[in-house]
Formats: sequence, C-alpha cells, structure tokens
Amino acid sequence: MSTRLHLAGPDDAPKLLAQIAAFHADHGIDQTDAFRQAALAPLLGGSPHGAAYLIGPRRAPVGYLVISFGYSLEMGGIDGFLDEIYIRPAVRGRGMATEALAALLPSLAEAGVKALHLEVKRDRPEAQGLYKRLRFEPRADYHLMTRRLTQ
Amino acid sequence: MSTRLHLAGPDDAPKLLAQIAAFHADHGIDQTDAFRQAALAPLLGGSPHGAAYLIGPRRAPVGYLVISFGYSLEMGGIDGFLDEIYIRPAVRGRGMATEALAALLPSLAEAGVKALHLEVKRDRPEAQGLYKRLRFEPRADYHLMTRRLTQ
Repeated sequence: MSTRLHLAGPDDAPKLLAQIAAFHADHGIDQTDAFRQAALAPLLGGSPHGAAYLIGPRRAPVGYLVISFGYSLEMGGIDGFLDEIYIRPAVRGRGMATEALAALLPSLAEAGVKALHLEVKRDRPEAQGLYKRLRFEPRADYHLMTRRLTQ
Repeated sequence: MSTRLHLAGPDDAPKLLAQIAAFHADHGIDQTDAFRQAALAPLLGGSPHGAAYLIGPRRAPVGYLVISFGYSLEMGGIDGFLDEIYIRPAVRGRGMATEALAALLPSLAEAGVKALHLEVKRDRPEAQGLYKRLRFEPRADYHLMTRRLTQ
C-alpha cells in the first residue's frame, strides 16, 4: 500500500474542513466552522507560511497534514513544523501517518527545507516511537513556552 | 532606560554578524562566517519567513533578536517563534532582553501575529521565570522532536 500525498488547493476545502473539525474535536479545540475556514484559506491559496496535504486518494482522503514554514539561523534556512496530522479513525493503526511522513520528508528536503519539527506529549511513548523510527530526535531537555497575543 | 528595537536591513549585516558569531560561540554552534552571512541575508532582505531586530542604538546595538514566522490552524493565523536572542556580556543582567521582548510583543500583536513561541531548557528556571513574567505559558508536558533534512 502506498500512501499518496496531494498538496491541497482551494477545491479541497470542504473535505479538509470536515477532517479538521474531527481533529479539533479529538483534541478539545473549540472553534466555529467559520474560524476554521478563515484559518485554512491562506494555506490553500499559496501562503508562504504553510501548506496542507491530503493523505490518500484525493477524492476520498484518509487524513490530512498541515506543515508551517519558519526559519532557523542555526540551520541556515527554512525549517518546517508539523502543525497537525490526522488519520480517520476507521483506518488508524495501519501505519498511514508514518507512510505519509516518510513520503513528505524527501520532498521537503528536495525543496531545501532544513529540518522538520513537531511537538509530542512527554507521556506518549508510542507516538515518540513512531517519530523516532522516522529519525526525529527528541529535544527532551527543552520545552516550549507560548505567549498568546490575541484572545 | 528604554530598550529600542530596530528592524534590521541589509546595511546592518556587519554588526549583526559579529553578534550572531558571539551567540553561536556561546551555544557551541559551529558555523563558518560565510554560512552565517548566507543564512542571515534573506531575513534582512524582506523574507516572509522571519525578521532580525537590533536591540538598543542602531549604530551600537547591545544585542539582537531573530523571530521566524510560521502558521497555526488552531490559532487561526501566523505565529512567531523566537529563533535567537542575544545581549552583549558587558550589559547583561540589566533586564534588556525582557525589555526588548516587552517592546516586541505589542508590535507583533498589532501586525496580527497570534502567538509567540520559544524553546527553553528544562533546567533553566531563571530563564523560565523571565518568560513567565512576560506571560509566556510553559508547555512542560510536551517537547519537540526534530528531523534534520540536510547534513
């Protein structure tokens, strides 16, 4: 089985928004549909700040992932951050997230992206194991701090 | 004392590069001057992925900070990441980093940036205290994992 990735464009908004709503419900993120639609639109319209990918067949995706693009002086260029990754419950446990990331990494490298970061929960060894197998290295001596700038 | 911030442009490269070299030496980051110059150039030339600021007087800055810009679906827009912050050793301990960040936050908020993130070492309570006073909230249940994509 090969897990294809498709860069999502404006036509993919309805399918994506349904899955984003499901991801946010899973993670207790409380948003309106209008908020999610406005947040997604720039990523489908060519924003330099990020991109959304459908996982699996374009017409019936099994999930999606969103990456944002930042910059690191230390790494000498653009780096990426895995903002969200979601697989539909009915097809979980088949390695599709791993395959999607394994497909994504070389295309990011080819585009000159220096590194991909993600944030994991400390008490989720199975998720950390998945990422370790993809050669993500834990930065367990550090953690993020976040200052919200809007309500 | 007010700690001014100046958005750095191409003319500021020499002063900035000297301080970036000092920051990297402090942090054991081993790079050539040419690598640092190439890494910095896009940030001084209007890249959407980040910006560098001089801290203090433009002709004789006491330090610098670099922010990168990413994107968060959950937050509904662009977020920022503090990539590097440096204060010259001779003037450390006077609260200049705190003042610089305190000056930066409202200007980011005004530009529509949704949040500013940074990564701290777990065993640096004094740094965490500084950021907590600026209302950064720790995400101590999580940590980053990073997959480098280039050598």
